[in-house]
Amino acid sequence: MADIATRVWNHRWKIDPIVRSLIDTDFYKLLMCQSVFRNKRDTHVTFSLINRTKSVPLADLIDEGELREQLDHVRSLSLTRGESTWLRGNTFYGKRQMFRPDFMEWFETLRLPPYHLERKGDQYELTFEGAWPEVMLWEIPALAILMELRGRAILDRMKRFELEILYARAMTKLWEKIERLRPLENLRIADFGTRRRHSFLWQDWCVQAMVEGLGPRFTGTSNCLIAMRRDLEAVGTNAHELPMVYSALAEDDAALARAPYDVLADWHEEHDGNLRIILPDTYGTRGFLDRAPDWLAGWTGIRIDSGDPATGAETAIDWWRSRGEDPSTKLIIFSDGLDVEKIEELHRQFSGRVRVSFGWGTLLTNDFRGLVPDDALAPFSLVCKAVAADGKPTVKLSDNPEKAMGPEAEVARYKRVFGVGEQERMEVVV
Amino acid sequence: MADIATRVWNHRWKIDPIVRSLIDTDFYKLLMCQSVFRNKRDTHVTFSLINRTKSVPLADLIDEGELREQLDHVRSLSLTRGESTWLRGNTFYGKRQMFRPDFMEWFETLRLPPYHLERKGDQYELTFEGAWPEVMLWEIPALAILMELRGRAILDRMKRFELEILYARAMTKLWEKIERLRPLENLRIADFGTRRRHSFLWQDWCVQAMVEGLGPRFTGTSNCLIAMRRDLEAVGTNAHELPMVYSALAEDDAALARAPYDVLADWHEEHDGNLRIILPDTYGTRGFLDRAPDWLAGWTGIRIDSGDPATGAETAIDWWRSRGEDPSTKLIIFSDGLDVEKIEELHRQFSGRVRVSFGWGTLLTNDFRGLVPDDALAPFSLVCKAVAADGKPTVKLSDNPEKAMGPEAEVARYKRVFGVGEQERMEVVV
Repeated sequence: MADIATRVWNHRWKIDPIVRSLIDTDFYKLLMCQSVFRNKRDTHVTFSLINRTKSVPLADLIDEGELREQLDHVRSLSLTRGESTWLRGNTFYGKRQMFRPDFMEWFETLRLPPYHLERKGDQYELTFEGAWPEVMLWEIPALAILMELRGRAILDRMKRFELEILYARAMTKLWEKIERLRPLENLRIADFGTRRRHSFLWQDWCVQAMVEGLGPRFTGTSNCLIAMRRDLEAVGTNAHELPMVYSALAEDDAALARAPYDVLADWHEEHDGNLRIILPDTYGTRGFLDRAPDWLAGWTGIRIDSGDPATGAETAIDWWRSRGEDPSTKLIIFSDGLDVEKIEELHRQFSGRVRVSFGWGTLLTNDFRGLVPDDALAPFSLVCKAVAADGKPTVKLSDNPEKAMGPEAEVARYKRVFGVGEQERMEVVV
Repeated sequence: MADIATRVWNHRWKIDPIVRSLIDTDFYKLLMCQSVFRNKRDTHVTFSLINRTKSVPLADLIDEGELREQLDHVRSLSLTRGESTWLRGNTFYGKRQMFRPDFMEWFETLRLPPYHLERKGDQYELTFEGAWPEVMLWEIPALAILMELRGRAILDRMKRFELEILYARAMTKLWEKIERLRPLENLRIADFGTRRRHSFLWQDWCVQAMVEGLGPRFTGTSNCLIAMRRDLEAVGTNAHELPMVYSALAEDDAALARAPYDVLADWHEEHDGNLRIILPDTYGTRGFLDRAPDWLAGWTGIRIDSGDPATGAETAIDWWRSRGEDPSTKLIIFSDGLDVEKIEELHRQFSGRVRVSFGWGTLLTNDFRGLVPDDALAPFSLVCKAVAADGKPTVKLSDNPEKAMGPEAEVARYKRVFGVGEQERMEVVV
């Protein structure tokens, strides 16, 4: 405990790098990176930071020089021998050599490409441009750095002892959540909280708490570095950036309509078992499933990442039935804005009907709500997304219009192509 | 924080002395010791450990060898040069040279006398015999050792991570108490929790929390070592052992009736100001005050340490008025079994009418209630009292018959001599 408080306390005197390893990132980033490396390595993409919570004035809170120092530090990192050995030799989802030699050779020599940083009002414009497999690896460290620097800006005002109390309270808070999760039978839950974590040390502590409190019901962490160091499962599959970039690259409407399935066709070739998880919401879950080829219904499961999760799960169950699949053999992974109440509720509603799993993110690794005045450490909604591919803008619709992004005309075109009508707006907390 | 958890964790591999300094004791012990050294140094006394909470089987929980190691360690201690310098040079209650050279010379060469330890059923019989000024210094370390060894017996079963959670929770709990005390205007509160503390490190942390949370409203600690190290006021005045031993030494009933006042006459000669605090309950507060000489009404205040505290305070206020004193100039120190609710209540009731001060003991430094299964770390009522002086038994009546002690016939005699009738029984928690 004191380690964390002391480290936080010491931040004010010396640079304490926030991201210290290229594998301090989500496992699915590496899986996707390999897929992109194989299938679309020359695609030129732009990733951009987007702070959906405008009330958090990042540029006022975070010193630009400090931010540059942190980003520069990430650019100085390369894969260590031990990390490489782990990626090459470890078993992921029961499979050896998940990462192929050609990808590993490339990754071993990789340094992250330059960034572009500019202050715009009270926010930062932070973008990354270049080859997709390189640029995509910026997403998680960039988010983690911004989240942690914002946290440090608040923590810097606190006294040594206040920090100790803060962490004692945060620990107590998390432990009480874990104790509430304990009675849930057959619970399967993983840490998905790297990107918006309070800090690396805190995420690491949260993972330990999950291990201690939930034992085998804690199924792993998305963070490769923590998984490696603590000998845990590294978990995750794929994310919206794949269909977003594939779709942006589509030549016409017909190709656009096909793009999200092309992504999964590439994935299908590479992966099996628990890695075959559909992420259906990029352009509306219902339409995606209705038009999906039958082989997709044979996949292991689905991840629900926007919209009302219960509705999404029921939609998936109905869809499996309509395709002659037995939902009870299927896996549903809930991963959108979860906290204990929602986990309990979804577990109650779906446990037994399908195989249920939870990817617990921000409110696992960054729930400092209510612990400092003005709730200045509350997590907020920061993302870093592919906004363009080969010069064309990307679009995301999602099952919640609050999470939609892209130029207006393109959004309209995508809505038409994917047959997305009126959607229910839901507040995005994290 | 981790320091504590780590130290606790490490206990299982090596001896970690519980009491590491002769001034890791209550300040009033040293004040009383000096008074005894001056007035009654040849009195032969017996102190004995008494566990009022029979449901805590100390001899089952604590290994006898370990207990002996800890007690032996205390016998190996002598005053360090720094400690001596502090006692000689520091200002206590605004006064320099509180401890006189002859006392200091004696104290500097002191080693604590032998102890007698024997297992009796599931309890330990632990007694100390010898010259009063030497034996009396065993009380606080003996209690602290027993309390902490009992705690360690429970902590030893816990895993590293559970310990971290335990302390995070205990810290959160205490901090929430302190936050409740903050709004109390003109609060004056001190740490009286050495004897039944969870551990030295924990007491030290609690003191820091009080300093951080209450600032100057935290008026000091009874623990000399912590006061010295943290540059805080060492506080405390006198305790029941003085009237108990003086009374035991009384030749006849007339001398017995006079004894409690003789104590204070000796004290009166030595001390002024804030050290002139009456402790009236040894043989019943009402009778003591009714028969008190007028010069006692001129003393600074009174300490209420048994019975219903509000009743005791009202009795004192009435008494001051009856002696022509202005109660609003008088100090009432509440010190019996306090916790936040009681402090709030007494503060509300007496603040403004008198000067109020609180000596917060066990539930400041050892409130681990509700934090482990079976409440195995809840504090319990352990005392170490003078039971005989020059071969004659001591008696304590107190304002709560649950706290009374001494042979039955002697208790009856004392009740007669001091005119104590029916008393209200109150549960003794700590």
